[in-house]
Amino acid sequence: MPGKVAARLAELKIELPKAAAPVANYVPVVVSGNHAYLSGQVTVWNGDFQFKGQLGKEFQVEDGQKAARLCGLNILAQLQAALGDLDRVRRCVKLNVFVNSTPTFTDQPKVANGVSDLMAEVFGDAGKHARSAVGVAQLPLGVAVEVDAVFEIA
Amino acid sequence: MPGKVAARLAELKIELPKAAAPVANYVPVVVSGNHAYLSGQVTVWNGDFQFKGQLGKEFQVEDGQKAARLCGLNILAQLQAALGDLDRVRRCVKLNVFVNSTPTFTDQPKVANGVSDLMAEVFGDAGKHARSAVGVAQLPLGVAVEVDAVFEIA
Amino acid sequence: MPGKVAARLAELKIELPKAAAPVANYVPVVVSGNHAYLSGQVTVWNGDFQFKGQLGKEFQVEDGQKAARLCGLNILAQLQAALGDLDRVRRCVKLNVFVNSTPTFTDQPKVANGVSDLMAEVFGDAGKHARSAVGVAQLPLGVAVEVDAVFEIA
Repeated sequence: MPGKVAARLAELKIELPKAAAPVANYVPVVVSGNHAYLSGQVTVWNGDFQFKGQLGKEFQVEDGQKAARLCGLNILAQLQAALGDLDRVRRCVKLNVFVNSTPTFTDQPKVANGVSDLMAEVFGDAGKHARSAVGVAQLPLGVAVEVDAVFEIA
Repeated sequence: MPGKVAARLAELKIELPKAAAPVANYVPVVVSGNHAYLSGQVTVWNGDFQFKGQLGKEFQVEDGQKAARLCGLNILAQLQAALGDLDRVRRCVKLNVFVNSTPTFTDQPKVANGVSDLMAEVFGDAGKHARSAVGVAQLPLGVAVEVDAVFEIA
Repeated sequence: MPGKVAARLAELKIELPKAAAPVANYVPVVVSGNHAYLSGQVTVWNGDFQFKGQLGKEFQVEDGQKAARLCGLNILAQLQAALGDLDRVRRCVKLNVFVNSTPTFTDQPKVANGVSDLMAEVFGDAGKHARSAVGVAQLPLGVAVEVDAVFEIA
């Protein structure tokens, strides 16, 4: 029987990407006490890097929102792989949203809404998180958005 | 009867801004266990965005310090709104200070002192925090500084 | 009798720098519950700031890895000073790696491996952490890399 969150994902027709294993000396998720700390997730779908470019140059707000949402799908995929069951999530505590930005792009909050909305859709009130959104000079492989996270878990 | 921290704020003649509610799917403060995680606070005073510009261009160090202090006042306002009473603060654990910087501005620590000094004034030894200060390419609405925080609370 | 981690450092011939005290209203390490939060550490060796410059301009990937490793050595030095004994480390939970990057440098993960590898060498499986690596516009004093951290401690 699928868990509540898995059922909710199915209801929303949200498919998760494969949880990619880092090829270096770090891990996607560390569980410490009743918190899960997630490595920065980027815009990758089953090994295919998408949304390569900067906000304010190659991409505008709507693209950035899709990119942020894709980071969030990878966060969910990594959590599911690490926890076994997303029903163990008690709260999305904090999201840090790093937006690859030209020196004049200032709509980081709108971009970040792409991942904030996803958490609210999937977890309801438990998805309402604290958040920072900043504009960085570049990101790994030139992707548009990177998001890391802290979750409270059971 | 006002709490100790409220009395200290009055003694220092520090007025807090209104705690602004985000207009998106996130919240200013998440309490998880005995920690409060704060969303990135920017340079806003009761809805009026101030200090729009970059360090090294529109602003120099002293402006940046005032901007960082204003972020800190918003952190305190959000904490008070979320906790009911700032006396519940046991420790300012961590501040992340994001400074909107030109590619040549390197005084992020001096700018960050604006908010670090505020925490020390208000909380004394309990205000002595761990801190990161980095120079980012841009920030929401073009503001000069954004600060997020973790507090230990009772 | 030296602790296990101290013996491991000696075996690896890893020397730690002096733990520098901040000259402002913040501290290198805050212990809250069973976690230690570290201030952003930069590329300094006993007061001598090294690796001043940007990745993609003054520095390439290999220099950046050395810079990131030096940040990590300062993290270990600060932890040892704060905890008394590195054997109290239960897990390196999270590293945030800020890489001073030109707008076209996209190898932040390779740079970050410099500090990730150090944690794995010193702590083994307990050194496997969650990680974010982003490219920032500038860093304090113009250094190439800044790293902050959360550790679980006994």
